Amino acid sequence: MAENDTRPDSLDPADWPRFRAEAHAMLDAAIDRMEQATEGPVWQAPPPELRAAMQTPLPRAGLGAEAVQTQLRDLLPYGVGNTHPRFFGWVHGSGTPSNLMADIAAAALNANLGGRDHGAIHVERQVIRWCRALFGFPASASGLIVSGTSIATIIALKAARDRTIGAEARTKGPQARPLTGYTSAQTHACVARAFDMLGLGSDALRRIPTNGAFEIDIDALRASIAADRAAGSIPFALIGTAGSVNTGAMDDLDQLAGIAATESLWFHVDGAFGALGILTETLRPRLAGLERADSLAFDFHKWMHVNYDAGFVLIRDEADHRAAFADRPDYLQGAERGLAGGNPWPVDYGPELSRGFRALKVWAQIAEHGTDRIGRLIERNCAQARQLAALVDAHPRMERLAPVALNICNFRFAPEGVPDLDDLNREIVTRLQLHGLAAPSTTTLNGQTAIRVNITNHRTRDSDLPFLVEAVERTGNDLLSAR
Amino acid sequence: MAENDTRPDSLDPADWPRFRAEAHAMLDAAIDRMEQATEGPVWQAPPPELRAAMQTPLPRAGLGAEAVQTQLRDLLPYGVGNTHPRFFGWVHGSGTPSNLMADIAAAALNANLGGRDHGAIHVERQVIRWCRALFGFPASASGLIVSGTSIATIIALKAARDRTIGAEARTKGPQARPLTGYTSAQTHACVARAFDMLGLGSDALRRIPTNGAFEIDIDALRASIAADRAAGSIPFALIGTAGSVNTGAMDDLDQLAGIAATESLWFHVDGAFGALGILTETLRPRLAGLERADSLAFDFHKWMHVNYDAGFVLIRDEADHRAAFADRPDYLQGAERGLAGGNPWPVDYGPELSRGFRALKVWAQIAEHGTDRIGRLIERNCAQARQLAALVDAHPRMERLAPVALNICNFRFAPEGVPDLDDLNREIVTRLQLHGLAAPSTTTLNGQTAIRVNITNHRTRDSDLPFLVEAVERTGNDLLSAR
Repeated sequence: MAENDTRPDSLDPADWPRFRAEAHAMLDAAIDRMEQATEGPVWQAPPPELRAAMQTPLPRAGLGAEAVQTQLRDLLPYGVGNTHPRFFGWVHGSGTPSNLMADIAAAALNANLGGRDHGAIHVERQVIRWCRALFGFPASASGLIVSGTSIATIIALKAARDRTIGAEARTKGPQARPLTGYTSAQTHACVARAFDMLGLGSDALRRIPTNGAFEIDIDALRASIAADRAAGSIPFALIGTAGSVNTGAMDDLDQLAGIAATESLWFHVDGAFGALGILTETLRPRLAGLERADSLAFDFHKWMHVNYDAGFVLIRDEADHRAAFADRPDYLQGAERGLAGGNPWPVDYGPELSRGFRALKVWAQIAEHGTDRIGRLIERNCAQARQLAALVDAHPRMERLAPVALNICNFRFAPEGVPDLDDLNREIVTRLQLHGLAAPSTTTLNGQTAIRVNITNHRTRDSDLPFLVEAVERTGNDLLSAR
Repeated sequence: MAENDTRPDSLDPADWPRFRAEAHAMLDAAIDRMEQATEGPVWQAPPPELRAAMQTPLPRAGLGAEAVQTQLRDLLPYGVGNTHPRFFGWVHGSGTPSNLMADIAAAALNANLGGRDHGAIHVERQVIRWCRALFGFPASASGLIVSGTSIATIIALKAARDRTIGAEARTKGPQARPLTGYTSAQTHACVARAFDMLGLGSDALRRIPTNGAFEIDIDALRASIAADRAAGSIPFALIGTAGSVNTGAMDDLDQLAGIAATESLWFHVDGAFGALGILTETLRPRLAGLERADSLAFDFHKWMHVNYDAGFVLIRDEADHRAAFADRPDYLQGAERGLAGGNPWPVDYGPELSRGFRALKVWAQIAEHGTDRIGRLIERNCAQARQLAALVDAHPRMERLAPVALNICNFRFAPEGVPDLDDLNREIVTRLQLHGLAAPSTTTLNGQTAIRVNITNHRTRDSDLPFLVEAVERTGNDLLSAR
């Protein structure tokens, strides 16, 4: 009581034993939810009561611990669904219970990884060393853990921009220099977004057509670079895709690395999920050339199932990386010793000075489970995508819309004589989601709406795939017979 | 056993009761650490054993749960120190045990807040509504939770850039347009960094001199704008500071809002920590004008003590905000119903598609404790900075180097006849850190090295201030007598 009296407005608990008991109750609720991840509906719409609870005015007085904990527990069933074995929508990793350990420790530490000398910084450095080793980058390579591939891409392309223009890029901007970059038409939207962010303009990114396998067309790429040079533009960056979002297509990175070398382009690889194929014997050969990239962006929260959010940028030449970001003011000067030691700091490698301790959950995931096991799960997902393709191919009323390159299968329910297959398949997907049966997504391939099944999920069982095909057929039939 | 046999490579626990017991043990270790936050050294250098443990090669086979949990626990004492009452270095919020509840629930949910319709999205919307209400922004204002003010500033200034130039800014870049922005010489480095990132060039940011209180000099500002217009530049943005990092100075936001209106400039406020002064009766008047800003950036992980990382950008006109970021490809199209519903999505308001559930810890902190209590803690920190100033002013061998505007007191140990006061004071700070007595930082003010004490800490007790002054004096005397 005495301590509480002298600090009436503490944000620390007045009654630690009670707080401890409440925290253990919350932990049990969270573990219950995780233990049930393979059961029940994939997704449930947030109910009206939850929405209503989220409409209260700004609380001046505070609702107290009990009310808040109740709302936290009430929220647990209404996730995006990516922890369920039949979540196939978008490339969301499915998380691990063991990552909870790292999140609990990280909460106690409350670290900012912008800089300084503390334990957390060493954990991040370890993750960087591991990534260097994993992708065959030299010891001179640098890296940074970020929220995801979107920010990682901005960082990599800024280093590319600034290396091309020189230090002046930072102080004077790219100005009127017509820098141009090259990528496939199937590349993730974050690449064009990075061009926009960095003042290069998204038009400066040439979207090269793809071949039948949705991989960048090498001849068209060469022609585009030549045409730009002839027109006075300055080609500066080539962006390869390791695992396109629509179909999982892998560009021929080895050929791209060669072109980048010949043309003196910065070679960046968008490997958001596909780069982690490096963990498997079968996919590693298809990533040949990645080890020659100037930069790589990928996510730990995808095929490594690290809790959201955690992405990474790896840059071959630390000097390029630092030159694009380092610039510290008086109050952030490092010191030889003490808390301001431990140079260089992460803030010298990216736009963020405030950075949470994402490194801990990444480190813990890799350290506990090892890369071999994660690799086997990646292999299994690819085998499952092929298994689904075989089911679709064998089905008289299903039609596949793209080759299976990795872990994604695109198909549609296509009974003869139905004119509006696009509407029908979109509605099938919506109903599967609404009924909690499965959560695929939709996309458009060659102008047709596809049911897109992406399996980046360590919980998906082989039995989930015939279940899905049957659910698609049944839902499609129900829709047709209701017409 | 049966389930484990069929899924040999699961990342889920084979033995849930055992996992549960281990998680509870980790939680107890984390709570022990938090309960001891007011005790022991402020900071301890990460020991050689910890560094050595972080040098293992990439684990192919996995170290297993027990080894990882041991390392997580071993890391707990080696935080940055910001959870301790005498952490005065840099503006780090000191975290709350109750935020652990939100982190546990967030780990179970593993949500990506890039988009879609799920419970987490509604929590973030609630936080946005609260921030709108808090800062007197209209219902048409939009917001986004980000990692911190650095990213928030990039987002705000991109909206400013794109509103000024129009849609072409995104596709063609700013090109040769000489856009110029204005801020004080005391502004945080992230503002110039944003100009660099956005392709405007950091030189385009005019750093206006400050008055004796380290506030932007209004006459110099007007003169700079006029000179740029005369020279053919296009002034487009004015950035005010609410709480400068060096001294806590608050620009006259009301005057700046007026100048921005007259000159048709986008008015952005960097309120990283100072904006939260709005929670107090005494500081609110000094933030007059903030409610007229086009955008505001601030951090929840500073004076709201939300766990790292959590910052915010608030933009007056949702249309400006969306125009700078919205652009979704086929595989991300929203739908009326189902998981792809709930438009607009957060990805329409910022560069990130991968976004963890930062909103939950923000929501929980505000909801549990209420804004009044947080406001009282802010008032207390400001009173403590004044208390420290009084102790310094009364001390014959101490010298204050800046007025106390908010929660920061800059001073130095300045005994007569010592020539190298800069070296001496830097060494005092390093020793205080190394001995775990206190963690102030250093900065440079008018060319002199200051001991910078920033009190953004709900655990700082009034008794910590005379303790600090005595420790500074004792350390300084020890250093002088050892010469």
